[in-house]
Amino acid sequence: MLRVLLKHLCACFGSLTLLTFLTTSVTAAEATVEQWGVFEVSLTGPTNGNPFLDVQVSARFSDPNTNIDVAGFYDGDGTYRVRFMPDKQGRWSYNTRSNRAELDGKTGAFMVTAPAAGNHGPVLVTNTYHFAYADGTPLRPIGTTSYNWWHMSDDLEEQTLATLAASPFNKIRSCVFPKHVGTNANELALYPFEGTPPKSWDFSRFDPKFFQHLEKRVGDLRDRGIEADVILFDPYDKGRWGFDRMPAEVDDRYVRCIVSRLAAYRNVWWSLANEYDFNKNKTDVDWDRLFQVVQASDPYGHLRSIHNGFYIYNHTKPWVTHASIQNGSAVENAGRAELYRDVYRKPIVYDEVKYEGNIARRWGQLSAEEMVFRFWNGIVAGTYVTHGEVLTSAQQITWTGEGGRLYGQSPPRLAFLAKVLSESPFLEPVDKWQDTNMAGQLGDYYLLYFGKQTPTSWTFELYKDHIKDGMRFKVDVINTWNMTITPVEGEFVTKKKDNYHFVDEKGRVVPLPGKPYIAARIRRVPDSTTMPPPPDSSPPD
Amino acid sequence: MLRVLLKHLCACFGSLTLLTFLTTSVTAAEATVEQWGVFEVSLTGPTNGNPFLDVQVSARFSDPNTNIDVAGFYDGDGTYRVRFMPDKQGRWSYNTRSNRAELDGKTGAFMVTAPAAGNHGPVLVTNTYHFAYADGTPLRPIGTTSYNWWHMSDDLEEQTLATLAASPFNKIRSCVFPKHVGTNANELALYPFEGTPPKSWDFSRFDPKFFQHLEKRVGDLRDRGIEADVILFDPYDKGRWGFDRMPAEVDDRYVRCIVSRLAAYRNVWWSLANEYDFNKNKTDVDWDRLFQVVQASDPYGHLRSIHNGFYIYNHTKPWVTHASIQNGSAVENAGRAELYRDVYRKPIVYDEVKYEGNIARRWGQLSAEEMVFRFWNGIVAGTYVTHGEVLTSAQQITWTGEGGRLYGQSPPRLAFLAKVLSESPFLEPVDKWQDTNMAGQLGDYYLLYFGKQTPTSWTFELYKDHIKDGMRFKVDVINTWNMTITPVEGEFVTKKKDNYHFVDEKGRVVPLPGKPYIAARIRRVPDSTTMPPPPDSSPPD
Repeated sequence: MLRVLLKHLCACFGSLTLLTFLTTSVTAAEATVEQWGVFEVSLTGPTNGNPFLDVQVSARFSDPNTNIDVAGFYDGDGTYRVRFMPDKQGRWSYNTRSNRAELDGKTGAFMVTAPAAGNHGPVLVTNTYHFAYADGTPLRPIGTTSYNWWHMSDDLEEQTLATLAASPFNKIRSCVFPKHVGTNANELALYPFEGTPPKSWDFSRFDPKFFQHLEKRVGDLRDRGIEADVILFDPYDKGRWGFDRMPAEVDDRYVRCIVSRLAAYRNVWWSLANEYDFNKNKTDVDWDRLFQVVQASDPYGHLRSIHNGFYIYNHTKPWVTHASIQNGSAVENAGRAELYRDVYRKPIVYDEVKYEGNIARRWGQLSAEEMVFRFWNGIVAGTYVTHGEVLTSAQQITWTGEGGRLYGQSPPRLAFLAKVLSESPFLEPVDKWQDTNMAGQLGDYYLLYFGKQTPTSWTFELYKDHIKDGMRFKVDVINTWNMTITPVEGEFVTKKKDNYHFVDEKGRVVPLPGKPYIAARIRRVPDSTTMPPPPDSSPPD
Repeated sequence: MLRVLLKHLCACFGSLTLLTFLTTSVTAAEATVEQWGVFEVSLTGPTNGNPFLDVQVSARFSDPNTNIDVAGFYDGDGTYRVRFMPDKQGRWSYNTRSNRAELDGKTGAFMVTAPAAGNHGPVLVTNTYHFAYADGTPLRPIGTTSYNWWHMSDDLEEQTLATLAASPFNKIRSCVFPKHVGTNANELALYPFEGTPPKSWDFSRFDPKFFQHLEKRVGDLRDRGIEADVILFDPYDKGRWGFDRMPAEVDDRYVRCIVSRLAAYRNVWWSLANEYDFNKNKTDVDWDRLFQVVQASDPYGHLRSIHNGFYIYNHTKPWVTHASIQNGSAVENAGRAELYRDVYRKPIVYDEVKYEGNIARRWGQLSAEEMVFRFWNGIVAGTYVTHGEVLTSAQQITWTGEGGRLYGQSPPRLAFLAKVLSESPFLEPVDKWQDTNMAGQLGDYYLLYFGKQTPTSWTFELYKDHIKDGMRFKVDVINTWNMTITPVEGEFVTKKKDNYHFVDEKGRVVPLPGKPYIAARIRRVPDSTTMPPPPDSSPPD
């Protein structure tokens, strides 16, 4: 018997998931799903043999202008599913294909409605260096890291979700495979394969319950407006379970399995690995292949990246959508942070810059001030930064290890940064390789960050591109630590100073408090004059 | 009639070029050429039609184990040449091939002798990030830039050569095409094509005299131990002659012509372009193609790079041997300079870091101190830096424009740096992304640069890798500006301090003069103890 399981998953934060069961054999009320929601075809099929290996099922989803082929998967107990994320509104139909007659040629139709509030679609690269949702809404990643949170107890996982909902974070990095650490010395409730821990696995049979749990958590994140940067491989197994050293064909099957399950969740990003180069069982050739398996399996082109330990992957390769970089030193000043932009011509996300913490290892000793400082350096370099916290709690767990609560002082300041960004255009270096602590949009908006300097004033001065005499600007002084924005009285009016810069016509300076972690925001006051056209190019002279 | 023109070009500095004419029709005394010298087959052939287009000639050079096919070229006046740089000693023979009978099937033999003193062969990449001559001798590039010097008067060119011979520079960047600047407002003596300046060129006919002159100057550099970084294209024509906007097939023919003429000169490096992205008549697709034309034409695999203006070329592409980068800000601190190493996993040469100078443009205003500072930052990042000078002389010419004399204060300090490097191993970052101002070879040699800091002491401290308790080190304090090396009395003996570092067992510190531009050199005192084995990997923990 054929059933269609329609998960009309409302994007409203905290809403309940509605499950509607319909039969397609009747022409009754057609199923509906919101744009970028999950439409699921559920079929009953064979249970004999090894359904994971023996049975192929997929569906072609069609609207009047598009055909999209989507692979399905076996979900246990004779149930096969094909999940689909429609990217356009209107009437769609589907037609299944399978090497088993009972799963082949099943058809149906459904209506795709307007997205609910808060559903902006999947995130894509825009303007070379930035991100936006499919509906055009910018996403400025303020990411965090909790590698193992969805392998914990339900109580702890729910606490993590509650913490996230109250946090500034709109992206989280988490590993599919469990991480072998002290806090999971006992075996876990769920594993990705059938078998007996720690090492007796049947790599030809997935355990659907493991993936169902993961899906639930990815959906929980989506419903809270948080992107799930799903880390497919990591080096933290250390041979305990062997998930870091499976044969290539198992790796590939695992990747296709998880992509067929999760790709219809609009908030998914694929991170091929954490610290990929610390896995000594794989080479660059393996990573290249796995990237291509993901790319070929994912009908929606979700973001794809890979995170390094000591050796940076070649992010110029075409299957990499953005550079995910571990290098704390790169955000010690904006001039460093900017360099990777030039190299990759893709968005740069510093996905590990060391963690706010108090542990003995030097990667877990950042003060909150230093963490916030690194975020701001990244931002005025036209890049993005990701948070992590290893402040140990009474329970001996850490946010970045296991989730739970945040104890650090950086998150409120990152929320403040997010607010500043929400009022800004995409930020680009203004005068690349020269004034490396200023970013903005030429002629309109500038964000200048003084970092650890403690100036008492700043002479108003803008780089020449898109500036002419007589343009008016308002300036705000931002205390990035105290989270205050103080407007400077009056306006600044541009006047050419030399070959490179314009200053205020009266030589006005901006008074500053002589403290560290101060920024200045300079915004154009609109007037009726015409803007000069953009120059052909900006040679570094 | 067939003649063999053997140019036995002795590498002894300042020696005269010996030209020996031999006929191969006799079995008399066989021609000889030193290893990595230039052996030239000279043939007389057709002058009718367009020899540049109509006649193909090449030769296969063979020793008992190798066949090397080398393209020849038409040198005017009915003379065709095939130039060969033998890379092994012993007896070689050749056999010519041509679409014209009178140039086809000509054979001969010659003996390749040991290289003369000072001839170490062509330069190749070694140890991923460094350079060495073919005989294994390291080359630490201390490069300079004089774009137009070999398009000047003979007197000025000879002065430039004399200046170079007395300088620390072992590499020079120069453009094949003349640069359109104020100093050559009149037309030049030589152009690469037949025709009438400024724009009436027959792009199907080269002017051999132009290339003969270039060859003479490349040979002059070789005889002074200087690598010629030959810049094949540049954006400085600005439409005056049109060499920056020739059709693709002319570009390709020009590249094959110059490679066939110059590849046998062991000191040649190919720089595809200066500020490649400022040439708006070519795209990345063109540059990729031109790289591949060079690669396919050059039997010896000379070094290949391309230099940027505002947009950095993708140096991960396989035909790029090393990254040639214009970015002055990258060498403002070693932590920045290092980043490109990780990205490219190739040697990094900062071929333009702004110039020592006194002109109005901000790329020509470095003090000598700043130029030397940038070299040292590059060096302790495990990279290399190139000099330039735009201090205008009474003649209104500059070193980096036209050559002549050097007036700046940086060259003697760069000679001092070269001396320090000549006593050092290849330098690698010691504790990447952590202590970014120290490079060396773990356990053996460390070079620590304090830059603009003015410390009065340094607590002896080494990163843990390859260190154990009880190892003994000598320290020298180097004043990089005053060019002094002062040994510190006594020895430092290592003792573990914590998870990351070793210090002196008695807590000794190194006294420093409290001045800027100081370095410390730490060298192991050999003893009879066994070194610990290298670790499997160096995770950044």
